[in-house]
Amino acid sequence: MKLVALAVFLATAYAPVQALWPQPQQIETGSSTLRLAPSFQITVAGHGVPGDLLAAAGRTKQYLFGDRLERLVVGRGAVDAPKFPKAKALQRLTLSLEKGASFSSITSEAQKLPEDRDEAYHLVIPADGSGATITANSTLGLYRGLTTFSQLWYEHDNTVYTVSAPVTIQDAPAYPYRGLMLDTARNYFPVADIKRTLDAMSWVKINQFHWHIVDSQSFPLEVPGFTDLAAKGAYSSSQVYSLSDVRDIVSYAGARGIDVMVEIDTPGHTAIISQAHPEYVACAQATPWATYANEPPAGQLRFADSKVTSYIAELFTAVTAMFPSKLFSTGGDELNTNCYSIDQPTQDSLKASGRTLEQALDVFTQETHKALEVKGKTPVVWEEMVLDHNITLSKDTRVLVWISSANVKAVAEKGFKLIHAASDYFYLDCGGGGWVGDFPTGNSWCDPFKTWQHSYSFDPVANLTAEESKLVQGGQHLLWTEQSGPQNLDSIVWPRAASSAELFWSGAGGNISAALPRLHDVSYRFRQRGVNAISLQPEWCALRPNACDIDA
Amino acid sequence: MKLVALAVFLATAYAPVQALWPQPQQIETGSSTLRLAPSFQITVAGHGVPGDLLAAAGRTKQYLFGDRLERLVVGRGAVDAPKFPKAKALQRLTLSLEKGASFSSITSEAQKLPEDRDEAYHLVIPADGSGATITANSTLGLYRGLTTFSQLWYEHDNTVYTVSAPVTIQDAPAYPYRGLMLDTARNYFPVADIKRTLDAMSWVKINQFHWHIVDSQSFPLEVPGFTDLAAKGAYSSSQVYSLSDVRDIVSYAGARGIDVMVEIDTPGHTAIISQAHPEYVACAQATPWATYANEPPAGQLRFADSKVTSYIAELFTAVTAMFPSKLFSTGGDELNTNCYSIDQPTQDSLKASGRTLEQALDVFTQETHKALEVKGKTPVVWEEMVLDHNITLSKDTRVLVWISSANVKAVAEKGFKLIHAASDYFYLDCGGGGWVGDFPTGNSWCDPFKTWQHSYSFDPVANLTAEESKLVQGGQHLLWTEQSGPQNLDSIVWPRAASSAELFWSGAGGNISAALPRLHDVSYRFRQRGVNAISLQPEWCALRPNACDIDA
Repeated sequence: MKLVALAVFLATAYAPVQALWPQPQQIETGSSTLRLAPSFQITVAGHGVPGDLLAAAGRTKQYLFGDRLERLVVGRGAVDAPKFPKAKALQRLTLSLEKGASFSSITSEAQKLPEDRDEAYHLVIPADGSGATITANSTLGLYRGLTTFSQLWYEHDNTVYTVSAPVTIQDAPAYPYRGLMLDTARNYFPVADIKRTLDAMSWVKINQFHWHIVDSQSFPLEVPGFTDLAAKGAYSSSQVYSLSDVRDIVSYAGARGIDVMVEIDTPGHTAIISQAHPEYVACAQATPWATYANEPPAGQLRFADSKVTSYIAELFTAVTAMFPSKLFSTGGDELNTNCYSIDQPTQDSLKASGRTLEQALDVFTQETHKALEVKGKTPVVWEEMVLDHNITLSKDTRVLVWISSANVKAVAEKGFKLIHAASDYFYLDCGGGGWVGDFPTGNSWCDPFKTWQHSYSFDPVANLTAEESKLVQGGQHLLWTEQSGPQNLDSIVWPRAASSAELFWSGAGGNISAALPRLHDVSYRFRQRGVNAISLQPEWCALRPNACDIDA
Repeated sequence: MKLVALAVFLATAYAPVQALWPQPQQIETGSSTLRLAPSFQITVAGHGVPGDLLAAAGRTKQYLFGDRLERLVVGRGAVDAPKFPKAKALQRLTLSLEKGASFSSITSEAQKLPEDRDEAYHLVIPADGSGATITANSTLGLYRGLTTFSQLWYEHDNTVYTVSAPVTIQDAPAYPYRGLMLDTARNYFPVADIKRTLDAMSWVKINQFHWHIVDSQSFPLEVPGFTDLAAKGAYSSSQVYSLSDVRDIVSYAGARGIDVMVEIDTPGHTAIISQAHPEYVACAQATPWATYANEPPAGQLRFADSKVTSYIAELFTAVTAMFPSKLFSTGGDELNTNCYSIDQPTQDSLKASGRTLEQALDVFTQETHKALEVKGKTPVVWEEMVLDHNITLSKDTRVLVWISSANVKAVAEKGFKLIHAASDYFYLDCGGGGWVGDFPTGNSWCDPFKTWQHSYSFDPVANLTAEESKLVQGGQHLLWTEQSGPQNLDSIVWPRAASSAELFWSGAGGNISAALPRLHDVSYRFRQRGVNAISLQPEWCALRPNACDIDA
């Protein structure tokens, strides 16, 4: 038993503890077999234990005894069975806060600004069967420790065991924002699919759900006072997220250490608003669409009109009440100027105000962001708002870099906190072929497919100065759903999105050859829990760590 | 109502009958609404009606009343509802054989050689509610007609209806072989997944399941007299296709008009045989694998050894008894000669016999094919067996062209019947990124992703003379499963594989813009029947035929 630094551990990651994902910062393991006693209990020390922590402990027990995952070796669990008779039994795992800390819910800890979240924890599992412990400064840290604990165990012949006792882990994330974006506007996803995705996210310690909830194609969000948007803009009345659906999703996420950042993308990507308010939208469904938008249907807010600005500010205000997150994304990507040059109402507004289009955009953005800020929200925008436009933004605005990782430096140079979301590394939809009709030779605009290895190899601080590097909040995978729906949600997201989860938790520089056996473990365990993570290789390879490496 | 030729119909395929897939050769439709009476019945005229036809009629009724698919238009089924009160009700569909034809089972008709299958049918649905009819020369034709019939109906508010009555269809396939290949060796698929896939295949009139059942990674087939192969070569005892599983799959397929062609790939792709018979396999698990095989693990039969030849001939004989198909694929792809140059037993065999490696391969192939031919089977091989080797093959051998569509001409010039299976058009696994480990920049060897549009635009007789064109039996999509398993089977196959199903049924030259709305219909109907076909576009596009075409 020895203390190993991360780099050394990675080089030997096909040793028995090949399951942990993301990789902890520091880990010591042994080689004793330890089993869970049938009466195994998880208890929380102290008074005023929040309900979501107790529920998380209950779920952890269900995973421990319900995963029924056999270890990924030739012969599977049967090779470990000879050690069961002499294995000590672990009776108890105790969670406790560090001295001086006091309980608040996982949910409230998760919903803080990224930089204020405390996810560190300390996990000890003695080999002798005496109690295991998780200690942390926050319930969120205790929850992360529970997640780690649940990945250590396999099952064979009704015995739940680890072959790596004792275990000591000291852990905390490298970056505070580790997200996943889902677009529910191109195609709709039932609440159950989102909740299953939140579960899966929590298993790899992703702490941010970036919910791109509406777009030009549909408006599936019921907003109090603005219910005509969904009534006229959802695909159907059954494809709407109601107030109670949102409450359900936000609370489900919170209990799993995940904050829900909503995105109401403006002023582009808003064609669907024309169904309820045709007067607010320029070039709605104009053709040829390719002249007026990056994808069909065309249509953008007449942001130069002060009535539109007020309307969106009020809409934002109403939406802030639905989402407790401190973050609120207002989008701002892919604004098409052709659309406004032919839109007479916009030209009239500009003439009346004496503003240029760019100045009007500045006013619109300031006004709508002000509506967020008075509600205590921090705006989040796509990169064009700082790189392509001359807009006044609060210094605390967070910027999502999506067009290219090459643009990260420019955003950092402007002094904004940033979130990695680059299409060249983290877009899950790339490589699936072109979806635009009548285009037989069309491929993905962002070909090729972004493999987990490629995402995993990303350097979050490439070309940044030490000072600029501090602006990196983390990053995320993203699923735009032109070619996705509930049918391929799991298979397109998992296990690939786990690669950024580890990158932004464990830090850059992980070794892909050492990571692969652990990522197989992620896929196999996800499936046991009902998430259809795909096979990364033939099972022959999954059972033989690194035998299918290119130089093996 | 007018008779329209295929080309004209395709140009207006977003008219109400947008559901049929594959497109019939000739179709007349009207614009009357006709509903199914609640007491609607399917009856078969005549005596000695085979059980599988009666079962197919029963399943068709279940689809008709169970699909509950609303029509893909803005407003969905509600836009048709005003026509329901005055709609005539169809009481009955009657199936009957043409005069002079006599009943045999769907299964036995499907299991004939491709060129002997009779799938033509004639379907009439009068607008006045008087009985609909399907007539054909064979039960297989009647079954294809039932499939077409089931695609014509939508449901709204508990009314099952069509808006296109009357309907008259005269139909027959352009090519007799329309297949789908599934590899169950890289990753295992439970029987239920295969049966669900067979159902889906039948819905688009695919008539050939090419079952690449074993490979170097695993041997999941229980063969009487050779049970050690699966006992030692399957991933686990629960990942084996037993005798009764095979019987179940073959009979399930047959009842759905699908023949099951098994593939026991030899002499390459056989590393796993070394688990039971190390003495039969050269360079088993040799490293570096890339020197001795196209993918890990390395290992190929010592075909120069007459004991190995006899063993494989006997294995083939045993397998022929499990599969009633007239076709039997012996593989023959990707033979690695490095492997034999370092294999002393092979060198000894060659020296003893005085043969070259190529001559030994010829003997092996002739002997093992003879074992098939005495059992009435027609051998099928991958293209290398005719293009890269100098092997004596019976003239009736069928050749699968996979490396490139550019090789079709060369195969045809040698006079062999051929099946299109080109990686540059029909490989479903391309575009999913590299799967080999420790290769961060690896992409699919056969990038990019093969879109349905690309496959659909394939010309089966490109560069062929009229005489050579007669050798084209049809073609198929193929799923190699390095990165697939039950988790993404539906999503990677459907609806893409439907594009070759239509290409080889309706013939080449289909218009992709006209096909897209019908293919959306395929996806949506598949989902209603429990197959997770993916979205090809945002639902906004699916509800607005061609609005998302590139020039729309």
